[in-house]
Amino acid sequence: MRTAQRINFLGTETAFAVAERAAAYAAAGRKVYPFHLGDLNFSTPAHIVEAARKAIGEGKTGYCPNGGILPLREALAADANTLRGTAYTAENVSVQPGGKPVIGKFIQIFMNPGDEVLYPSPGYPIYESQIEYYNGKAVPYGFIAGKDGFLLDWEGMERAITPKTRILILNDFQNPTGASCSDGELEQLADLACRHDLAVLLDEAYFEMNYEGKSRSLAGFPGLAERSVILYSFGKKFAMTGWRLGAAIGPREVIRLFTQLNTNAESCTTHFVQYAGLAALQGDQGEAARILRTLRERRDAAVTLLNACPGIRCFSPRASFYLYPEVSGLMEKKGFGRDYAAFA
Amino acid sequence: MRTAQRINFLGTETAFAVAERAAAYAAAGRKVYPFHLGDLNFSTPAHIVEAARKAIGEGKTGYCPNGGILPLREALAADANTLRGTAYTAENVSVQPGGKPVIGKFIQIFMNPGDEVLYPSPGYPIYESQIEYYNGKAVPYGFIAGKDGFLLDWEGMERAITPKTRILILNDFQNPTGASCSDGELEQLADLACRHDLAVLLDEAYFEMNYEGKSRSLAGFPGLAERSVILYSFGKKFAMTGWRLGAAIGPREVIRLFTQLNTNAESCTTHFVQYAGLAALQGDQGEAARILRTLRERRDAAVTLLNACPGIRCFSPRASFYLYPEVSGLMEKKGFGRDYAAFA
Repeated sequence: MRTAQRINFLGTETAFAVAERAAAYAAAGRKVYPFHLGDLNFSTPAHIVEAARKAIGEGKTGYCPNGGILPLREALAADANTLRGTAYTAENVSVQPGGKPVIGKFIQIFMNPGDEVLYPSPGYPIYESQIEYYNGKAVPYGFIAGKDGFLLDWEGMERAITPKTRILILNDFQNPTGASCSDGELEQLADLACRHDLAVLLDEAYFEMNYEGKSRSLAGFPGLAERSVILYSFGKKFAMTGWRLGAAIGPREVIRLFTQLNTNAESCTTHFVQYAGLAALQGDQGEAARILRTLRERRDAAVTLLNACPGIRCFSPRASFYLYPEVSGLMEKKGFGRDYAAFA
Repeated sequence: MRTAQRINFLGTETAFAVAERAAAYAAAGRKVYPFHLGDLNFSTPAHIVEAARKAIGEGKTGYCPNGGILPLREALAADANTLRGTAYTAENVSVQPGGKPVIGKFIQIFMNPGDEVLYPSPGYPIYESQIEYYNGKAVPYGFIAGKDGFLLDWEGMERAITPKTRILILNDFQNPTGASCSDGELEQLADLACRHDLAVLLDEAYFEMNYEGKSRSLAGFPGLAERSVILYSFGKKFAMTGWRLGAAIGPREVIRLFTQLNTNAESCTTHFVQYAGLAALQGDQGEAARILRTLRERRDAAVTLLNACPGIRCFSPRASFYLYPEVSGLMEKKGFGRDYAAFA
């Protein structure tokens, strides 16, 4: 009784492993400042909690449609249209138990074994894990340090494209570099995706974690909504990470496949949680704005502290809540050389 | 931009399609008696709802461990040990967003492309869909009408085994025939699984929907816990279908892989819903018993009504809440011949 070969290709997310070690460290009575998971020490806003309670009370506890309740799909389409300049309807939305499931399902839908997928590195580790799990070739593209933040390594990306490249994964407002595309870069990316006929996964989990100006989505560019799927997450903006609520937003025929994968995997996303999501989108946005203000203050404080440490340099990212400091100076000084594992 | 080939192998669950047609029928003002989905018109018991509310209030709204919260895993292991005679600990349990995800993950973990999988037919359609999606060969085994219920077609199953058979899917207390194994049949199955070195998926979603006596699990037989994974579902017993809560219970190393698949797909199951599950297992069982009594009364009424129709014969299943009537007499009489689609 052996396990199947595919399992050897499955990766993981080390943040959860770090979380376990941090919990053990804290259990031993030591103080831990948790910087390792994309979790937030905010409470879910009260009106969202109340909507969940109300839905449970009203018996929204049985099965619901595999692709999600209609009012939530309509609200997500409307929200995307307002913020991204698209023209989606409910048929363009498949509700998911979190943003993360969108990654694996997108890869299943578009990637044949042997196909090449461009993905950001450093980046969210699940991209590479899922590409390799489904027998694709994970082709990384990087970032370069600009004047006041990280930029897409545009030349590296262009060079990495081959006739086998089928998918581009873009995590604008990036985890972990905070890199955010300029309008010019978005135009270049839109052009590149059309020229090479790529399917594009837009991981926009941090789209609304923008401290400086209005975010733009590649989905709003001509021809891009037809070839892109937006990974939408309720987790960060509304402090709902543990509720497990997200959505795939994209072309109708592709969304139909997402929902068919739901039918095979989870049946549906927790019924009453979807009403909480509806309240999050349609209710008072004051709490979400307050979360964003607090994160901005924390960013400023953390960046100032890091840059005050000799041997560390850190950009102040204009979006997301990740910092990606350059620590090689400090490592050198402390005698760690290039041993990152020991330094961590 | 074409979709990947694997998507052509993905099946679906027609019950949800019937649900959509039934909803349209009801919207047109006609009365619909819903017999098509494994859903129940019971409310989730009040103490379970209260536990969810309390957990949300206490901030169980962030991420939790990928394999589920420790107290729920401990409670599930203890529950299995009591009812199934096993010796599981928390390390044998991976919490899932429903029972259904256990099917696809089990197949991913144990089945290589080309491997053969024995599955019940008629049966839950997701088995066949997931076997074919992951490029296995779905080999059906059937049931035969006995004196007072359906029995495993034992000879057919034995004949279907080849050197390529790697997995046996057993849905005791079966959907839709209600077939339930006798002790003698379970012993034969245990022997067969060991003799052919099969990995066994025990879909026990209806384990506690037993109207006549105490259920036994194949996992409790010598050598079987080491090669079996139990699909555990909170949905039916506690009227929690829409909560999406279940678990995989099996060998530690296999469960570690289930949890690694969680890390890649859903991160974790909704945090506070797991506290509701804990209350379901540890709280008052009176409501679950009442649900079972009501289902028994409904079974008796429905079976009596069906058998009163000329041309229909129906067994009274000793477990599950499905009826599988023989209608060919009625179809003949009404002039449908063998056109099942038209007759439906």
